[in-house]
Amino acid sequence: MGRISILRLGHRIVRDKRLTTHVVLTARAFGANEVIVSGERDDGLISKLEKFIEKWGGEFKIRFEENWREAIERWKRNEGKIIHLTMYGVNLPDVIEELRRIWDQNNIMIIVGSQKVPREVYELADYNIAVSNQPHSEVAALAILLDWLFQGRELSKEFPNAELRIVPQLHGKKVIRLR
Amino acid sequence: MGRISILRLGHRIVRDKRLTTHVVLTARAFGANEVIVSGERDDGLISKLEKFIEKWGGEFKIRFEENWREAIERWKRNEGKIIHLTMYGVNLPDVIEELRRIWDQNNIMIIVGSQKVPREVYELADYNIAVSNQPHSEVAALAILLDWLFQGRELSKEFPNAELRIVPQLHGKKVIRLR
Repeated sequence: MGRISILRLGHRIVRDKRLTTHVVLTARAFGANEVIVSGERDDGLISKLEKFIEKWGGEFKIRFEENWREAIERWKRNEGKIIHLTMYGVNLPDVIEELRRIWDQNNIMIIVGSQKVPREVYELADYNIAVSNQPHSEVAALAILLDWLFQGRELSKEFPNAELRIVPQLHGKKVIRLR
Repeated sequence: MGRISILRLGHRIVRDKRLTTHVVLTARAFGANEVIVSGERDDGLISKLEKFIEKWGGEFKIRFEENWREAIERWKRNEGKIIHLTMYGVNLPDVIEELRRIWDQNNIMIIVGSQKVPREVYELADYNIAVSNQPHSEVAALAILLDWLFQGRELSKEFPNAELRIVPQLHGKKVIRLR
């Protein structure tokens, strides 16, 4: 199975702070290797997320990229395939077997937009994929695509070198500090 | 299978506008029957969402509820079981078979918080369930729980009486107007 990189398009500092945070944390928790944030440069958010993520462990990376077009083209040249998540695409159940085969042989970049995504992205993507053809959330779409690729195994993923770890409880909260 | 109601706790008008919107649209797209929003009263958001949802069809309902405690207790008395989504709970893969059995016999309310959830909610819930014990997003957690309950069938759900319908495309966008 290849590496998975998420490209978050069109981030706006004020408006998208929380949703980009949810995209980044979802990408990490569900087994992606990195998130590339494009749009308005937001070094404050990225360093805050890096510190937060460090506490919870794992090898996940975040970085800003000015030029999303170049990031996509570089990925196609050097790394692998591009999946763009959009409600207008082919519905996931109709294409999941093919995506699993592709991922078996290739690294994949998953593109998630915020507001209106440039038409060019639909052309550059190898696959435009919908997680249902209904309007909902790029966070939900990303979580479902990753869960379907990993077939649920990502929910039990270990994150090495964590500072904090949760001990699951039927009622209440228990967090242990590991270092 | 029972009805599924989502209770969104602690909504704040300015701060949570977009995330509550994502929770509501995700709940609808993934087959829940209704969302109850609690926290700050936000009639503007609710009527905007109602109009938006009407265009896309289906029987989904949204309403505001002042007193979340009463909403939970009423559900337990009259309707069925309560699942609270929290990173501190029992991990979904360890409990999904039981949840499917419960849902087969009962209506379920799924509680999703925003910021800090009152301790009482952990006590009132029949199940505190984590979608991985990692920090991420209530939108992702809700999408995954619904997808695991419906076992992927929700992605092909039909929404009757829609005004708009998407015709899935490998590249580009196609929306048809039905009325």
